[in-house]
Amino acid sequence: MTTGTSPQDFAKRLDKTAEDTEALLASLLSDTLLPDEIARPRRVMEAMRYSSLGGGKRLRPFLVVESSTVFGVAREAALLAGAALECIHCYSLIHDDLPAMDNSELRRGRPTLHKKYDDATAILAGDGLLTLAFDIITRDEIHSDPTVRLLLTRALARASGIGGMVGGQMLDLAGEGRFGDREPVDVARLQQMKTGALLRYGCIAGAILGQATTQEYQALDDYGRALGEAFQIADDLLDVEGDAAALGKQTGQDAALGKTTFVTQLGIAGAKQRVSDLLGKADAALSIFGARGDVLRAAARFVAERKN
Amino acid sequence: MTTGTSPQDFAKRLDKTAEDTEALLASLLSDTLLPDEIARPRRVMEAMRYSSLGGGKRLRPFLVVESSTVFGVAREAALLAGAALECIHCYSLIHDDLPAMDNSELRRGRPTLHKKYDDATAILAGDGLLTLAFDIITRDEIHSDPTVRLLLTRALARASGIGGMVGGQMLDLAGEGRFGDREPVDVARLQQMKTGALLRYGCIAGAILGQATTQEYQALDDYGRALGEAFQIADDLLDVEGDAAALGKQTGQDAALGKTTFVTQLGIAGAKQRVSDLLGKADAALSIFGARGDVLRAAARFVAERKN
Repeated sequence: MTTGTSPQDFAKRLDKTAEDTEALLASLLSDTLLPDEIARPRRVMEAMRYSSLGGGKRLRPFLVVESSTVFGVAREAALLAGAALECIHCYSLIHDDLPAMDNSELRRGRPTLHKKYDDATAILAGDGLLTLAFDIITRDEIHSDPTVRLLLTRALARASGIGGMVGGQMLDLAGEGRFGDREPVDVARLQQMKTGALLRYGCIAGAILGQATTQEYQALDDYGRALGEAFQIADDLLDVEGDAAALGKQTGQDAALGKTTFVTQLGIAGAKQRVSDLLGKADAALSIFGARGDVLRAAARFVAERKN
Repeated sequence: MTTGTSPQDFAKRLDKTAEDTEALLASLLSDTLLPDEIARPRRVMEAMRYSSLGGGKRLRPFLVVESSTVFGVAREAALLAGAALECIHCYSLIHDDLPAMDNSELRRGRPTLHKKYDDATAILAGDGLLTLAFDIITRDEIHSDPTVRLLLTRALARASGIGGMVGGQMLDLAGEGRFGDREPVDVARLQQMKTGALLRYGCIAGAILGQATTQEYQALDDYGRALGEAFQIADDLLDVEGDAAALGKQTGQDAALGKTTFVTQLGIAGAKQRVSDLLGKADAALSIFGARGDVLRAAARFVAERKN
């Protein structure tokens, strides 16, 4: 199936949303966040900025913006919801990088937060970003109907919590044998929670903001699940076949840890076939939107075929 | 000023709310929280239960319940909001106890969570409780008006975040000289953020739930600030004069760390005088409620005069 969005147009849209998200996060994390009369805990603010600003594809905010565009939602509202989601994503990276968790020293070619600052500051900056997300997602500018903002808020809590991302990270550590014997891993479920839940949230956020019909909501939910799984399989494939320079991190990490991944479960050829099937599912889910789904179709391809 | 609530009545009310909160948290943290089709990350659920169940005075939920009672708010709604606040409180204790933070081994006479489990589980259980709080606080049962739930949610994020509790913890660590030279400490501001913000939230939650007038809201805000400061001064005094057995923890810790506290700033007599002044402020703030403020008046005394 061909998509109506050229790779050039897609790249431009992705870049524009990344730029707008960067500017919005910079403003949300500026000192004006705190009322004047309160002493400013500068160190934690700086640490939050260090981990949230300075790039990245901003894929999750992009999904919020583009799923919102399907319903003609105001861009400013979608960007704000996307920024809240990005705060959750950034906090999860900070906490996952800690010595007690994955013990990572580099992220995007820079020292991880706890290496740049210290563990206490990293824990607090993560807690601060997680909490800030729930401050942002409730704001009046996101939607005039408070019920819509509440739905967005609760869905964000569910995607991020123990039934979503936090739970997925726990299953991942258990599967690595961190708490005794390796626990058996259901890769698809683990990844649905650990990385899938936030990506899927990005896709249903537009349906919530756009007050979609049940059928439209379900379509974006199906699309989001397919995209989330394709994202993770691509990640697992990059760890085996990717270019360390392009990735900005070592490859072969999963094998070194003896991790169960989509590639160990399906093999390389099987994993690639599964990605292809998932792209078909994503396209099928979007069919009810016709041409309005073109950018999301391109997004699924981008996620599946990315080189970093 | 005499209070219309006898110490026996007060103790009964406090115990009853603690029991109800315990039962509610146990149900919120039961396995039914996760949909059946999702693998249960049992370890993190157990860790969340270990740290949230099994006692404590549940002072913060009590404040939510009693400030709500002033306006005739349904007890079930207040208990739910109180449980959300308690989740935030419990998460903060878990993260504060970590080796990278205060490195505490005991809490309420039991091993702290990271000693009972491990650091990774403690970080995730804290993240899980923090996120769960925002799931709970948005629930329909809390109030029929979504605007009220949104106000409660945003106020909770503000009280917990870098302008509140998280920021206060950072200032506290900086004041201990954890990041180089000891930074100068404004004790009143630090404690307004670190411990005061959540206690104050407990007091204004009733005003939000009860859709109070601006004047009534302000009264509970003033009361909450006075109570929060009195709580902390009492804490500082207990560290100097308290009974380690009754407290269930070592005394003299602040002096050992060379911390700036209300006692080092005001002296023992000055600190006691300040508590007395704050109780006067709390009473004055409650005067517009007449007899409806009796239990809150007793709560301020309880907080100021507690032995543990």
